[in-house]
Amino acid sequence: MTVRDHMMIAHSLRGEAFGPAQRLHGATYVVDATFRRAELDPDGIVVDIGRAGEELRAVLAEFNYRNLDDEPSLASVNTTTEVLARLIADRLAERARAGALGDAARRIDGLVVTLHESPVASASYERPL
Amino acid sequence: MTVRDHMMIAHSLRGEAFGPAQRLHGATYVVDATFRRAELDPDGIVVDIGRAGEELRAVLAEFNYRNLDDEPSLASVNTTTEVLARLIADRLAERARAGALGDAARRIDGLVVTLHESPVASASYERPL
Amino acid sequence: MTVRDHMMIAHSLRGEAFGPAQRLHGATYVVDATFRRAELDPDGIVVDIGRAGEELRAVLAEFNYRNLDDEPSLASVNTTTEVLARLIADRLAERARAGALGDAARRIDGLVVTLHESPVASASYERPL
Amino acid sequence: MTVRDHMMIAHSLRGEAFGPAQRLHGATYVVDATFRRAELDPDGIVVDIGRAGEELRAVLAEFNYRNLDDEPSLASVNTTTEVLARLIADRLAERARAGALGDAARRIDGLVVTLHESPVASASYERPL
Amino acid sequence: MTVRDHMMIAHSLRGEAFGPAQRLHGATYVVDATFRRAELDPDGIVVDIGRAGEELRAVLAEFNYRNLDDEPSLASVNTTTEVLARLIADRLAERARAGALGDAARRIDGLVVTLHESPVASASYERPL
Amino acid sequence: MTVRDHMMIAHSLRGEAFGPAQRLHGATYVVDATFRRAELDPDGIVVDIGRAGEELRAVLAEFNYRNLDDEPSLASVNTTTEVLARLIADRLAERARAGALGDAARRIDGLVVTLHESPVASASYERPL
Repeated sequence: MTVRDHMMIAHSLRGEAFGPAQRLHGATYVVDATFRRAELDPDGIVVDIGRAGEELRAVLAEFNYRNLDDEPSLASVNTTTEVLARLIADRLAERARAGALGDAARRIDGLVVTLHESPVASASYERPL
Repeated sequence: MTVRDHMMIAHSLRGEAFGPAQRLHGATYVVDATFRRAELDPDGIVVDIGRAGEELRAVLAEFNYRNLDDEPSLASVNTTTEVLARLIADRLAERARAGALGDAARRIDGLVVTLHESPVASASYERPL
Repeated sequence: MTVRDHMMIAHSLRGEAFGPAQRLHGATYVVDATFRRAELDPDGIVVDIGRAGEELRAVLAEFNYRNLDDEPSLASVNTTTEVLARLIADRLAERARAGALGDAARRIDGLVVTLHESPVASASYERPL
Repeated sequence: MTVRDHMMIAHSLRGEAFGPAQRLHGATYVVDATFRRAELDPDGIVVDIGRAGEELRAVLAEFNYRNLDDEPSLASVNTTTEVLARLIADRLAERARAGALGDAARRIDGLVVTLHESPVASASYERPL
Repeated sequence: MTVRDHMMIAHSLRGEAFGPAQRLHGATYVVDATFRRAELDPDGIVVDIGRAGEELRAVLAEFNYRNLDDEPSLASVNTTTEVLARLIADRLAERARAGALGDAARRIDGLVVTLHESPVASASYERPL
Repeated sequence: MTVRDHMMIAHSLRGEAFGPAQRLHGATYVVDATFRRAELDPDGIVVDIGRAGEELRAVLAEFNYRNLDDEPSLASVNTTTEVLARLIADRLAERARAGALGDAARRIDGLVVTLHESPVASASYERPL
């Protein structure tokens, strides 16, 4: 099951490989979060879609309308699309394990987060739960 | 190889978790059916794309323009997006095994069906053939 | 300026021309609301995008997760995609004239509402404000 | 005839109405530029599509991978989606009038620029040439 | 009201301006046909959506899976995206006037045909009916 | 990490199963190339996105604006969507192994190429690197 939301952020990337993206610029990230499990729960779902959407929104709210270069929690990381996909996946996993998606969600066994940065580029991160 | 079609149905969901979706409402489901195999056939295909599209259309025709709450074959199931994805995958698998996709299709080893219920939510079901 | 949202409804259509759509079925309508004006306001906007999105959501909330055949306010209309586009445009226009979009919005001179019922069909309604 | 490209920028918006968008953030703008004319030229085109794409790319290059708050040419404007659409349309119009799109392009009579800032919001600016 | 379909064709373009597109190549054209009228008919529609889709399909069938360079009816034209949009609009208009869309369709006053040749380029033709 | 580009080609398919696609026709192929690896490199990336896009473009340039039936390198193959996906994946893999994507790319362990031939059909090929 996949839910989609988006966030609008500013950031700059560190490293010569990034060329002009070393300058402060920004992105609208369209974010897909996919929850996987082997069998559906008794209601016939992977996870409550409403709750999944709310948790994704809550995770993105920490970044939305911000300059990631100024976020203390991101000081040590290069906020590439790949790194942000991993970070969002990790935060969703923490919330799921803490029960935010309900008891049924404890049977989720995998999580994939995809960030689309433009119509021609995206990055995904896949992890177990 | 993936073919896409869609269907327009009414239904209601059973269970408090579904909130307002417990009321009779509806959805346009955009349906992707993916057929997988290890090696291409001698013609260089996974499966005849025309036949695959026709079989998907035939499976969806049983639901299209209907109220799923009134379908006897669905009486015992909660027609969530996840359950419908599994159901459509199972019906395509039956048809493929019965030869509807041609002899070449007997080498298909997996099937994924994805239902997009809105621009922000979808569900997939993956199974062997 | 255009904002997008969606709603999931059940309905049936009256008239032989509608063929199988005379049966109770449903749709996910992706709804675009476009606000037009000759000149931008002093902030450089057509209308507050946040407010526009909230008003569109409020209008759609009256239909979302419902069977339109049971809505008393729709008893006399055939809820085709075209009719729903006009109805939503009219309700947005009422709200705009009542001040829901702020003072700046009083300079809006036109409104277009488009409903996408599937990947292959949509309808638009355009009106002055 | 319409060509599409995109740019990734940082900026902040001035005015209480913008709420959290007053903070430095960013956007991927997907940009459509539409050129209109009454009759096609002798080659059967509105404008050379290759040249139109190059001119759009050249206009966006002045903003791409930049913080618009630091651009001297934008110091006096609030870089809303609407204002950027107008600015890009005006720059394309200047280039077209200066002959950058070729002689045939002198028969273009209108220009529309649309900026999509997210899957749910966009703004268009239409002007004569 | 807009219906969408697509066609897959080969062709080459005549004229130095077309650069590499002077070679024989091809395109998948995604085609939108929009029918406009001032007021809805008594059923609450612009035109029967099923019929509109069938007529569009019939018009595209004359080109689909063909090399346009070999079509006698196209011998005198440069089959640019713009020219094909006009041609398809003209053929739909003829059919509508001949009654193919039903009596209600006689009240249609305008027609727009858009051909998307790639994710970054499209052309539209608008005409009265 | 996924990059997207497209190409416009003419071709015909050999084999009765292809029906009308045995005639010379064409397609716009929207091509996604996905690069996979277990861990990100020290810059926080899978592969330099700029280089990945350039390599994909270079591979597609050999086919773009051509009639594949006339390409000597394709004389022995049936250029189905599936076969083209495999061919493009193999060429990208060769380039990656030859160092075209930089040293970091040597840690890429998988590659997926997807070709979308129309809004309703696509094919993917997945291989290790």
